[in-house]
Amino acid sequence: MKILRSVKQTQALTAKLRKKNIISFVPTMGYLHDGHLSLIKEAKKRSDIVFVSIFVNPLQFGPKEDLSRYPRDFGRDEILCRNSGVDYIFYPDVKELYPEGYSTYVNEEKASAGLEGKVRPGHFRGVTTIVLKLFNIVQPHISVFGQKDAQQAAVIGKMTDDLNVNTKLIIAPTIREKDGLALSSRNVYLTEEQRLDAPYLYKALQYGKRKLTYKNYNRDIEFIKKQMYKLIKSRSTVTKIDYISFNNNRTLETISSLKQIFDKTEVLISLAVRFGKVRLIDNIVIKR
Amino acid sequence: MKILRSVKQTQALTAKLRKKNIISFVPTMGYLHDGHLSLIKEAKKRSDIVFVSIFVNPLQFGPKEDLSRYPRDFGRDEILCRNSGVDYIFYPDVKELYPEGYSTYVNEEKASAGLEGKVRPGHFRGVTTIVLKLFNIVQPHISVFGQKDAQQAAVIGKMTDDLNVNTKLIIAPTIREKDGLALSSRNVYLTEEQRLDAPYLYKALQYGKRKLTYKNYNRDIEFIKKQMYKLIKSRSTVTKIDYISFNNNRTLETISSLKQIFDKTEVLISLAVRFGKVRLIDNIVIKR
Repeated sequence: MKILRSVKQTQALTAKLRKKNIISFVPTMGYLHDGHLSLIKEAKKRSDIVFVSIFVNPLQFGPKEDLSRYPRDFGRDEILCRNSGVDYIFYPDVKELYPEGYSTYVNEEKASAGLEGKVRPGHFRGVTTIVLKLFNIVQPHISVFGQKDAQQAAVIGKMTDDLNVNTKLIIAPTIREKDGLALSSRNVYLTEEQRLDAPYLYKALQYGKRKLTYKNYNRDIEFIKKQMYKLIKSRSTVTKIDYISFNNNRTLETISSLKQIFDKTEVLISLAVRFGKVRLIDNIVIKR
Repeated sequence: MKILRSVKQTQALTAKLRKKNIISFVPTMGYLHDGHLSLIKEAKKRSDIVFVSIFVNPLQFGPKEDLSRYPRDFGRDEILCRNSGVDYIFYPDVKELYPEGYSTYVNEEKASAGLEGKVRPGHFRGVTTIVLKLFNIVQPHISVFGQKDAQQAAVIGKMTDDLNVNTKLIIAPTIREKDGLALSSRNVYLTEEQRLDAPYLYKALQYGKRKLTYKNYNRDIEFIKKQMYKLIKSRSTVTKIDYISFNNNRTLETISSLKQIFDKTEVLISLAVRFGKVRLIDNIVIKR
């Protein structure tokens, strides 16, 4: 396994490797957990060479967000990558990707508008910009993202379609603790008490899915949502629910009534909940 | 020579071709003239396979601009390309590049802010978006643009650097009529009278360059500009001068005093002038 820190060196290497190998790519912000490792496994299955990038992208954090507090442990990440059969880690510093005078940004303007995009203005502009840059540097045939960040997956899907990026996207399922909590690098910040309440996010999502797929199908979405709010608010360490939302899983258009759900509509139920300073997101998809 | 109309087909082809050939690319809006042919010649010199795209990009025209009036003649363009040794023309229709629900845009926010960007808001957003899309479709090793559109060249240079696009940019010199008028597809709209006045744009640029490089070097930029305005305004068919500007040729920062010109600063003198509905731009670069 090799660690690459320069854009030029990486790009020259991938241009050469591409000619005879299938390259897959897993972009991460590091502090890897089993969720990331499942993405790496998925990548390995489909390619000859696996690239992982580790870069905490300042552009996707708001001024009041947790950029400086975001957990980092490159030594540990390196070992995990090596043990997972990763071939190359791209591990640039901030100046390598955003040199002085940097001035170009990628904006997806529809799928990114609601949900996380509304609560975190500028977040997806940071995501689409860095992901496009990384695609251009790693030049992968296949790129793997997690379903955990459902809106991110939809926004990146829209961006790669719109900009004709020549990489195939794989969205791998969310990995959960036994009690249902979705794996996230931010989970380490939960107190013991908050950690006990956190699985209720998934419980609420499961409740929503159950109600929506109930065969008589006569429930009202606003009613289901209200019940989900109630269930989460019942946990004492929850300080704020940013949103609970029902959306078209591809376009992310809001679904507020069952009339908007057609035969082939995949429904995304997603939510964002704060436990003090720790903000968690989770989602569930209902395929038809 | 082959004509390609689909993104998928073109992208599959270029991915394959790239493995054993150097691909060069000349993006155009068609209605080719000797200026374009000089870019094709430059491309041919440096590569195994030459791609030309012909696409009048609606995204770079403002609502009050000349999109519908922009001249088109694909039959003629096809013959010119064939005679110039072009290997492939990429000739998509608008829906192929901007399908319904299109929502992703590329913005360069510094080099694109002044000059044309100020007079034509949204223009460079259209340019950087389409050029990035075309880069992703054609996947060229080398891309050739004209110095005629000086700010476009600088903005695309900044965009490819910032987004780590793996293509080498070549900026080829402006081709002129014998009387100095820069070739442009828009020249066909000039009346006989306007056509006689149009060479004064280049005369004014040459005057500016002469004054700026005069060895005693004691002229004031505002004074030189005033003289250039005077010279152009003296032509009766000129209806408006949008700007005459002195800029750093790389960053496009405005230069308003000689103190801002250092040893290695390349100075770009550029202008935009209207003859009724016909708007012409031209420029000259002073290398040091």
